[in-house]
Amino acid sequence: MSELTSYHMTPAEFRRYGRAMVDWIADYMEQVESYPVLSQVEPGQILASLPASPPMQGEPVEAMLKDVETLIMPGITHWQSPNFFAFFPANNSGPAILAEMLSAGLGVQGMLWATSPACTEVETVMMDWVAELLDLPDKFRSSGPGGGVIQDSASSATLCAILAARERATNFQINERGLNNKLVAYASSQAHSSIEKGIKIAGIGRENLRLIEVDDHFALRPDRLVEQIEQDRRAGLTPFFLVANVGSTSAGAVDPLPEIGRICREQGLWLHVDAAMYGTAAVCPEFRSIHDGLDWADSYAFNPHKWMFTNFDCNCFYVADRQALINTLSIMPEYLRNAATTAGAVFDYRDWQIPLGRRFRSLKLWFVIRHYGVEGLRYHIRRHVELAQQFAEWVAASDTFELSTEPTLNLICFHHIGGDAINQAIMDQLNAGGEMYLSHTKLNGRLVLRLCVGQTHTEFQHVERAWQRIQAAATEV
Amino acid sequence: MSELTSYHMTPAEFRRYGRAMVDWIADYMEQVESYPVLSQVEPGQILASLPASPPMQGEPVEAMLKDVETLIMPGITHWQSPNFFAFFPANNSGPAILAEMLSAGLGVQGMLWATSPACTEVETVMMDWVAELLDLPDKFRSSGPGGGVIQDSASSATLCAILAARERATNFQINERGLNNKLVAYASSQAHSSIEKGIKIAGIGRENLRLIEVDDHFALRPDRLVEQIEQDRRAGLTPFFLVANVGSTSAGAVDPLPEIGRICREQGLWLHVDAAMYGTAAVCPEFRSIHDGLDWADSYAFNPHKWMFTNFDCNCFYVADRQALINTLSIMPEYLRNAATTAGAVFDYRDWQIPLGRRFRSLKLWFVIRHYGVEGLRYHIRRHVELAQQFAEWVAASDTFELSTEPTLNLICFHHIGGDAINQAIMDQLNAGGEMYLSHTKLNGRLVLRLCVGQTHTEFQHVERAWQRIQAAATEV
Repeated sequence: MSELTSYHMTPAEFRRYGRAMVDWIADYMEQVESYPVLSQVEPGQILASLPASPPMQGEPVEAMLKDVETLIMPGITHWQSPNFFAFFPANNSGPAILAEMLSAGLGVQGMLWATSPACTEVETVMMDWVAELLDLPDKFRSSGPGGGVIQDSASSATLCAILAARERATNFQINERGLNNKLVAYASSQAHSSIEKGIKIAGIGRENLRLIEVDDHFALRPDRLVEQIEQDRRAGLTPFFLVANVGSTSAGAVDPLPEIGRICREQGLWLHVDAAMYGTAAVCPEFRSIHDGLDWADSYAFNPHKWMFTNFDCNCFYVADRQALINTLSIMPEYLRNAATTAGAVFDYRDWQIPLGRRFRSLKLWFVIRHYGVEGLRYHIRRHVELAQQFAEWVAASDTFELSTEPTLNLICFHHIGGDAINQAIMDQLNAGGEMYLSHTKLNGRLVLRLCVGQTHTEFQHVERAWQRIQAAATEV
Repeated sequence: MSELTSYHMTPAEFRRYGRAMVDWIADYMEQVESYPVLSQVEPGQILASLPASPPMQGEPVEAMLKDVETLIMPGITHWQSPNFFAFFPANNSGPAILAEMLSAGLGVQGMLWATSPACTEVETVMMDWVAELLDLPDKFRSSGPGGGVIQDSASSATLCAILAARERATNFQINERGLNNKLVAYASSQAHSSIEKGIKIAGIGRENLRLIEVDDHFALRPDRLVEQIEQDRRAGLTPFFLVANVGSTSAGAVDPLPEIGRICREQGLWLHVDAAMYGTAAVCPEFRSIHDGLDWADSYAFNPHKWMFTNFDCNCFYVADRQALINTLSIMPEYLRNAATTAGAVFDYRDWQIPLGRRFRSLKLWFVIRHYGVEGLRYHIRRHVELAQQFAEWVAASDTFELSTEPTLNLICFHHIGGDAINQAIMDQLNAGGEMYLSHTKLNGRLVLRLCVGQTHTEFQHVERAWQRIQAAATEV
């Protein structure tokens, strides 16, 4: 609590506490390696340590900072640790945090162009910068009929793509009249769970999502896709949508976009390309082959909040035909009407997403890209890939471990040759030890370990020690 | 760019630039009144001022801070100005910004309990605190079968409610098989546009959303609701969902929850209560009558990011039966499986929302509620309501302006007696002048002005000057 007469924190107080918070974050950056990576608390432990009721009287910020240390930190899994190799990275960086501070300080609502033109126009420019950064097809630039928008997550991007595809396929009749229950969507058996979730949300129904068989590299088989589409058409159904993986969650598989794209075009399917983590790799020209065939896509998404030093949330979602998206999601109530919108002179990004409100998230991309420069981003992405490939070489040369699939970019799937129980035990022991954190998946029914290199400060020694620890754990269990 | 060999911002650099950013934000807090409230830029102006391509080499943070001043600030509409009276407030505060900084610095992913237990458990406790703060029905507490979760926006909360209702009404058959196209939803003609948007997204179809007639106070008429439900049943349709307003966007109307609740219960409809802005008023016992009848609700949402000093995004969404929500939105792929989830011992909030990923947003509520205390929050909410009521008295006593509807809480709808063109001209002149910002809506076909009091630092003199300026503008036009 501050001045008794106002309760508000004064600018002078904010200056003092803001500096304390900046110092706390800087200290955390310096010390993050000293914490157990995976939180070791029991369910309910943090909850029980907090008061059951809100305080009647305000408390000093010092009390909150102290509680962060003593009550919160034990319950943190340290995603920013260089020894975090689980799931996917969610890396942040100094410039991204500065931009998030700025966004919170400005506190603008970007729902309409008019409610803060800079929020909309910086976003438009940043989406075009990123399209250039990744060398995406021109059709995704805002200068033509397409364009990009920041979403909170790949899940939301996928959902938006499904919805736009649904309406395109039915001449907007589902928005108007509700579903006819004849639409069918496609993805590989390795597609992310968000696709099933989106298909359910959109009212398509899980049984109308076909999970197509994959090849030995866990990539979608175009021959099987064609067979399934033909079978569905014979059954009187309407194929309308396909999600292709560029970097599947489990194994980093890249679906064959050129073949799939041609099929989607012939069959009139909306092709959405989900490159959630791997998309970032295209910052480096030598990795851009992952996007071969992207010209066929109707929409594309990747997450700078995974592997591009930009803290969550920041998904970049591109469409080739923005009008299909806007027509699907736009509603204009009287209280939002304004001259710029009516004139059609501006983008109102509320019509490109599920929620109405939006933060000034493009500041993060602006700060991150300007801080690192294209050159700096390339340097680190290359380095992460190198480190992952080095790890893969060690695994390949090992007598007790083997690669579960061809290593691609920064994600390595591998397993101990002794079977599922041993792999589970190795993972459990490593994660419980707190010195590193890795996760698992199943490939062809076998439990395999996933080591993903992408945290901001992960260096050679962290990956080397990870391999040593994995070997030591294998010896012990 | 920092050290040539690494490109990363070092902790020492972050300390320096972080302090500069804190000072910038504190300066902004001090100077926010000196900016034109509504940005005066032309469409495309900001966009044209930014480089078309990302820089190859990194740039110093100083360059970005300078560009924020010269390029960005002209394009900002100052939502944090005490002279901002448009739309709804989106107020922030020192403690909220500190918490946002902390959340960005920690950079944790809260998708699963296991990926940072504190992120989940602090959220659970905060949602229970807020339920107590607003004196919500016990069924919304996490200790029973219900519970709360932070969503990005009321739109997303509404969508989640629609989806859970859809699945409850069809025994989860739409998730599984897709829509049968017989569901019908209800809301008043004053309901927020997000309801139509959610109904479309969920595949129900706009024509299956019934917008029920309102009474003289713009509240839903229960008699008309019953008639419509009966008519729909006779037509073989399945009524499944109703959204009630506690504070409609246009006029702050409060739908009669007790009558509506009883109808929904009898008819088996899921009742969602949308109290986006007004919900905050229930922090004060004397305003809690807005929630009379909330016991009938299946779900409830309000936005601390509107009127509770917590920067966007922070919507509090409560359900009485969390299992209905979780069963609707949960999918468990192998790569997310973990012991705590399998044991059923924890909440995984990813299953309570559309996206998978989530930030540590409950820190904002924790900091804000602890900083102000219940007492401090009550003080400011009362004050805002007092100021709005004072404004309403001035309007009521005026010869040239009149109230468009009964003033409720912090939102006043009023109009000049000279007709729509004059009201439009008054608003345009005031907003173009930059000294204040207010917005409009239509009620009974008439264009009316909306003055909403809720910015963190809005005091008597700001409202007084607003009234003087409105009168002066009326004289001029």
